[in-house]
Amino acid sequence: MSADVIKVGLLGLGTVGGGVIKTIRSQQEKLSARLGKRIEIVKALVRDSEKERAVQIDQAILTTDFEDVLKSDVDIVVEVMGGVEPTYDYVRALIEKGCHVVTANKELLAKRGTELVELANQHEVHLAYEASVAGGIPILSVLRQFLRTNDISGVRGILNGTTNFILTKMEAEQLSYQEVLKEAQELGYAEADPRSDVEGFDAMYKLYILAQLVYGESLPLADVVRKGISDLSAGHIHIASELGYRIKLIAQAYQTEQGIRLSVQPTMLPVVHPLAQIQDAFNAVQLSGNIVGDLLFTGRGAGELPTASAVVEDLAYLLTQPFAPHPAWKEIAATQSGALQEDQCSLCYLEGSCSSATPDRVLHFLRTAGVSIHKLKVQFDLGGVLRAGLITSGLTAEHEAVLESDFGLSVRCFPVLETAE
Amino acid sequence: MSADVIKVGLLGLGTVGGGVIKTIRSQQEKLSARLGKRIEIVKALVRDSEKERAVQIDQAILTTDFEDVLKSDVDIVVEVMGGVEPTYDYVRALIEKGCHVVTANKELLAKRGTELVELANQHEVHLAYEASVAGGIPILSVLRQFLRTNDISGVRGILNGTTNFILTKMEAEQLSYQEVLKEAQELGYAEADPRSDVEGFDAMYKLYILAQLVYGESLPLADVVRKGISDLSAGHIHIASELGYRIKLIAQAYQTEQGIRLSVQPTMLPVVHPLAQIQDAFNAVQLSGNIVGDLLFTGRGAGELPTASAVVEDLAYLLTQPFAPHPAWKEIAATQSGALQEDQCSLCYLEGSCSSATPDRVLHFLRTAGVSIHKLKVQFDLGGVLRAGLITSGLTAEHEAVLESDFGLSVRCFPVLETAE
Repeated sequence: MSADVIKVGLLGLGTVGGGVIKTIRSQQEKLSARLGKRIEIVKALVRDSEKERAVQIDQAILTTDFEDVLKSDVDIVVEVMGGVEPTYDYVRALIEKGCHVVTANKELLAKRGTELVELANQHEVHLAYEASVAGGIPILSVLRQFLRTNDISGVRGILNGTTNFILTKMEAEQLSYQEVLKEAQELGYAEADPRSDVEGFDAMYKLYILAQLVYGESLPLADVVRKGISDLSAGHIHIASELGYRIKLIAQAYQTEQGIRLSVQPTMLPVVHPLAQIQDAFNAVQLSGNIVGDLLFTGRGAGELPTASAVVEDLAYLLTQPFAPHPAWKEIAATQSGALQEDQCSLCYLEGSCSSATPDRVLHFLRTAGVSIHKLKVQFDLGGVLRAGLITSGLTAEHEAVLESDFGLSVRCFPVLETAE
Repeated sequence: MSADVIKVGLLGLGTVGGGVIKTIRSQQEKLSARLGKRIEIVKALVRDSEKERAVQIDQAILTTDFEDVLKSDVDIVVEVMGGVEPTYDYVRALIEKGCHVVTANKELLAKRGTELVELANQHEVHLAYEASVAGGIPILSVLRQFLRTNDISGVRGILNGTTNFILTKMEAEQLSYQEVLKEAQELGYAEADPRSDVEGFDAMYKLYILAQLVYGESLPLADVVRKGISDLSAGHIHIASELGYRIKLIAQAYQTEQGIRLSVQPTMLPVVHPLAQIQDAFNAVQLSGNIVGDLLFTGRGAGELPTASAVVEDLAYLLTQPFAPHPAWKEIAATQSGALQEDQCSLCYLEGSCSSATPDRVLHFLRTAGVSIHKLKVQFDLGGVLRAGLITSGLTAEHEAVLESDFGLSVRCFPVLETAE
């Protein structure tokens, strides 16, 4: 690095990239005092160098050619372009030139992190990624700190702000998924193609990164249970609420005797559960340490400045730390299925015609089959449609099949997370 | 320090001291790997060396004479005996011998911290105190991290678990303060002499420490607004709830044009406010950074292991860091009174006989006096007692005096914290 300037390259200049520039500018004095050097953005890779931007930037810094970044001899690259291709190739080339990397890209880390960590260690450069999980919540640094004096048994949370915003609105305004999605897209909370958020991919990538940190390993992505929220109906949310529950897209990693398990799925929480209180686009992460107990961290999980705050903090931190090898990332295939365990409580939502399924007959069948029913809510509408919510344990896929075939019911079961867990 | 052992002295062996010993034992392997040395408790100062203890400890380690600790050549002292005298003298003597200090003692820090910080800097020893605020929540380390890239405008929270437990119980079970205090004492959540907790001293000490960190200065303790919970009645809590509010003992530090202000007082929160959700003996701290936005951290604020976790983490952390001077602590006297600002919203609780104060007459007086009334709840009981809750702005001490003298009402006003703030 040169004597008095740290040369930073930017890959991507969207919302977060703009936030990084603004933050470096507004905090330049603080940063210089801490680092003894000025931070300068010397090159920024963009798709379109003519585009109008919310942040003022010298046109000469912009380039659409990655080779310009590579040739500009940057000390550190901040990768906020997203995606895996060509991002992986770019980051790889920069690491091989001895450049430190700060990234907010959870997909890249979840898909190619094992290689990137190894490569960074080989070339003795820092790879920092606090911004990739839960935006401004410093969850990775907090986890690293706790891991030094605690065994952490599990971590769970709401890791995607878009889906939490949608679920909050669906409940509060009794709207359908499609109506709220449209509004979220208009507000800029959801992408034009919302699949990564609403199908749980984004939360899964973040969970994968958390698992690598907490357990020193993760499951391959293919072994992570992943269910999204796009098939949730106002009926599900209403019945849940009548039974005292709220649906959240919960990501969790925990240890079992057969190894770790990772899941991202709509989950029923008692309304008094701390994670049930997390509304709108907020994120929250709960961790359980054997010594410190349960802790909960809440904050904005995305957005220009919260994410930029984490990026700039990583950048400043790594400049003050000597290189130390990053613990290797490993993937261990799951040894058991990710399906609901039979003894686990679930909330089952049944819907169908009263003519084929009367509550009496349905309950008789379930009880005879050995399913325990802890709580029950039944509704009929004028059109003769039965909607029922049951808190059950012992309900298997076979029982679900019978409810569908013999009673003509559509069935959707959600795992239940109790407060005491 | 000797080649392969770090010699630790303990001042105090109560609940937290026992937790520290248990934690060091259960995490010895992890700690040794990290530090390259074994941690050994070589001396523990206790009041009574014959007392039965929850933790097994070699009798030869115990002493009732501080001189034994001083002579035993410890590298680090863990101070968990509490109080200011003689604790201050002991800690001072150890610092002067070049011994690092880890303390969980908020009272000591709030009353003598400016001197201890200066002394530690003079003797180039670490002074670490994560455990002194919010138990296992790593709030000081998180704040230090954010301060590097954020300007923090304010910090507020629930810093005392005992009072939060009492308020939670009073509301949930509609019990009086005295009934719940008794239960809390039986459960070990409150001390036999509960004054430090229930009168807000404990929370004030913690707030003082937070202010030193966030602003590089604090007010002298005498300038901190401090009100406790011992005069809260079931009536206050009931009226608050009817108006959509919940009372919490809120500690906050914030900047005004006239300098910083610190207060600890029962405060009305809308029930949807994140801090209103913090129940039982939990603590929570909310901070607002200009870049990261609002963050909330929740966890157990006290107890054997959460506090011990913070102590042991401090201990291990300082052993891996070279000495760096601690920023000096300063005290700046307040330049304005800590009373409620006139334009601030407050919830006023009025109680008196219907014969002297009819709602009509009271409201007429307030409106004529220019007080705005945003929300109102009035109750009468069979005995002719009027109880009213008013959300007002513009109510001054003079108005309160008139309500008391001319209407024979008892008046208690609480500041209101709105969600949007």
